[in-house]
Amino acid sequence: MSAAQAPGLAGYSDEVREEVARVREVVARLHAELPRWELVVWTAGNVSQRLTTADLFVIKPSGVTYDELTPESMVVCTLDGELVDGTRSPSSDTAAHAYVYRHMPQVGGVVHTHSTYATAWAARGEAVPCVLTMMADEFGGDVPVGPFALIGDDSIGQGIVETLSGSRSPAVLMRNHGPFTIGADAKAAVKAAVMVEEVARTVHISRQLGEPTRIPQEQIDSLYDRYQNVYGR
Amino acid sequence: MSAAQAPGLAGYSDEVREEVARVREVVARLHAELPRWELVVWTAGNVSQRLTTADLFVIKPSGVTYDELTPESMVVCTLDGELVDGTRSPSSDTAAHAYVYRHMPQVGGVVHTHSTYATAWAARGEAVPCVLTMMADEFGGDVPVGPFALIGDDSIGQGIVETLSGSRSPAVLMRNHGPFTIGADAKAAVKAAVMVEEVARTVHISRQLGEPTRIPQEQIDSLYDRYQNVYGR
Amino acid sequence: MSAAQAPGLAGYSDEVREEVARVREVVARLHAELPRWELVVWTAGNVSQRLTTADLFVIKPSGVTYDELTPESMVVCTLDGELVDGTRSPSSDTAAHAYVYRHMPQVGGVVHTHSTYATAWAARGEAVPCVLTMMADEFGGDVPVGPFALIGDDSIGQGIVETLSGSRSPAVLMRNHGPFTIGADAKAAVKAAVMVEEVARTVHISRQLGEPTRIPQEQIDSLYDRYQNVYGR
Amino acid sequence: MSAAQAPGLAGYSDEVREEVARVREVVARLHAELPRWELVVWTAGNVSQRLTTADLFVIKPSGVTYDELTPESMVVCTLDGELVDGTRSPSSDTAAHAYVYRHMPQVGGVVHTHSTYATAWAARGEAVPCVLTMMADEFGGDVPVGPFALIGDDSIGQGIVETLSGSRSPAVLMRNHGPFTIGADAKAAVKAAVMVEEVARTVHISRQLGEPTRIPQEQIDSLYDRYQNVYGR
Repeated sequence: MSAAQAPGLAGYSDEVREEVARVREVVARLHAELPRWELVVWTAGNVSQRLTTADLFVIKPSGVTYDELTPESMVVCTLDGELVDGTRSPSSDTAAHAYVYRHMPQVGGVVHTHSTYATAWAARGEAVPCVLTMMADEFGGDVPVGPFALIGDDSIGQGIVETLSGSRSPAVLMRNHGPFTIGADAKAAVKAAVMVEEVARTVHISRQLGEPTRIPQEQIDSLYDRYQNVYGR
Repeated sequence: MSAAQAPGLAGYSDEVREEVARVREVVARLHAELPRWELVVWTAGNVSQRLTTADLFVIKPSGVTYDELTPESMVVCTLDGELVDGTRSPSSDTAAHAYVYRHMPQVGGVVHTHSTYATAWAARGEAVPCVLTMMADEFGGDVPVGPFALIGDDSIGQGIVETLSGSRSPAVLMRNHGPFTIGADAKAAVKAAVMVEEVARTVHISRQLGEPTRIPQEQIDSLYDRYQNVYGR
Repeated sequence: MSAAQAPGLAGYSDEVREEVARVREVVARLHAELPRWELVVWTAGNVSQRLTTADLFVIKPSGVTYDELTPESMVVCTLDGELVDGTRSPSSDTAAHAYVYRHMPQVGGVVHTHSTYATAWAARGEAVPCVLTMMADEFGGDVPVGPFALIGDDSIGQGIVETLSGSRSPAVLMRNHGPFTIGADAKAAVKAAVMVEEVARTVHISRQLGEPTRIPQEQIDSLYDRYQNVYGR
Repeated sequence: MSAAQAPGLAGYSDEVREEVARVREVVARLHAELPRWELVVWTAGNVSQRLTTADLFVIKPSGVTYDELTPESMVVCTLDGELVDGTRSPSSDTAAHAYVYRHMPQVGGVVHTHSTYATAWAARGEAVPCVLTMMADEFGGDVPVGPFALIGDDSIGQGIVETLSGSRSPAVLMRNHGPFTIGADAKAAVKAAVMVEEVARTVHISRQLGEPTRIPQEQIDSLYDRYQNVYGR
């Protein structure tokens, strides 16, 4: 559906329209974190957040540079990825975000980047081994690899959901493609995108000169449990 | 021809002079993208754009730092690389840009950098293999290598044109030298310069710890076709 | 103890309260050095400084981003790591800082980061060999590795103190975790955190293409002595 | 000699005092290029420029951070490295700069950094091979390695002068230490410091995945001659 035909938010309650306005600001602002942490170049990468008041989510429009991103330019889609409100087409990755929201109700935010080190592991189809306490805290183990999937249907979304459903990790490295991350909201998913690149880089560098020592599973469990429950997230 | 002897734009129509003024602004502004994406150090690297109203193009002057680049300092040359308007000498790479414009009429913008990872592949004379969906989208396959060529005659321009004429890629890695990129306009060529460094870096890093998986040609074709035609560029 | 129950500084002298105010500013400002030198992402990393007028230290609160750090948000703890003053919980690394202050009276500042290259050496459990005059100056030899230790008790603090007590180095690489650094005050500890990442990176890169030449011990001693005594620090 | 005992510029002509004022500004401003191009961390690295009106040079004071560098804080020394004017002690590398000025009269600027990739080659004691046209242009061949030398006498200065006297290169990699660069003035020496790090990085990265192709000597000569003479510098 082209942006000109978008039905708009007229049929939704004031509460929904107010949440859309707030989430547009949040999502626009969080996009600035992607170049700040050097996760994207040019217009690559996108952030979305699901509404709590309706089955909708807010996502980046397609092909807009990071300098031009404003709350108003963010677009609103249904959980089937159909454009509801906005003056531009949604990101070409919208179908993958929508699939995640439809199949993982606990997820409130999704991020996709091509961050360099995470994508480098993805191009080899290799999981990042858990050799850092920071990984045990944040990912609860290895960062897993998802299948090779072409854009255009639900393949990418299915690959993300299948891989993350069997993992503590909020990040999946889609083969030959790049990382997708999830969280309770968009901010948590952005944090996971920052952290997955950081651990992908650190473990890569460590392995360049030898084999880093894996943390025993019992201690990974202990660290993960403490970080998620005692320390709070 | 020295800058003092430049004939100027007096013999051209108002329409041409107006396009020159617009393109000088575009080209000056796009130069700022080169240090922003860390593609250049000091004064290395140059961007040009061809006019649509005359057989002229606008390019960076020689030896000026990125802090000093203004629309006024940009110079105008014929498609033979002769200076037409400007108070400084054109970039020492002007002959290569001019050769491309003479022999590839569909090209409206050319960029040259010595960006680190692309130049590292160029120093080994090795093409960047297509192992990322982002490469299939943007380059339609491997990023090819062009011949070793000395500056001073048309050798560099010939090497660019011969290599890119047989390729979907908008980027060529000139041996022992660095990348040249082309596009419908200068912005598209700058995007290609940003993307070639990004994929050169990501594939380099991936290969440091093993062999990344090549994407099958059929799927490269599918991704390229979709990105160039369906998604729009 | 939760922040709401913090006893506050009412029982301390004016002199102590004045030092707390000054040190809160110093510690807040020094946190900005961590992202500046690319030692941390997101909210990772923390700086503390011990008071000279009381057995207290000032440290970063938990889970606050670097953009939000103000002198007021810094928290004050006893040398047992108990919160004395502040509206937020102290960093989850507070127990390690406190242990260092209790057992190394000459230490006035402690810094912890997960800086990439230092953490990469830590993940392999490998000391950084002294192959740079800059390392001889600042570290007086290799940068040592500390034990693997879980957060939650004094294990990390003990590992830091045992390793640094037998070394000239102000930095220890805690296995699978990251660097901790010490100094006469927080600024000196931040400098050591910057320098340990720099030498970890430079020696890593040097070793990627061969074996760097170790500096003979006698010359390390001579450089260290001069830098610490003649040149001043 | 301590700063308090510096004799000052009272015995020099107005012309000299005016040049000192100008060169203090130039040298202070050029120091900002070192962190800008990521050649230094903390207070490492220094730039100097020789006067044309007297046997004096202007250099960075010791231990001052880059944020605090002002024209007034720069110090003036004789070609024997004795402090003439300034409120702080000269850089601890002053003796090496002074030795270069005494023995290479054509040199008007000297720069020293510990930039990462150049220092990594220096730690292995390995010259950077000429595999890039940019290296042929700027360095006229390989970037040479100088001897291991301790600070405190003329050893470093001698090593620089001996190595560069037999080379076209304006940069020498002092073993286990880092690069020193020279130029007709401080700006040219800073440019050489930027370029030596750039080529050290690019050739390092190229060699990580194979052997870059050396440029034949005849073509190096042709490129160097053109760049230095025809194109101008």
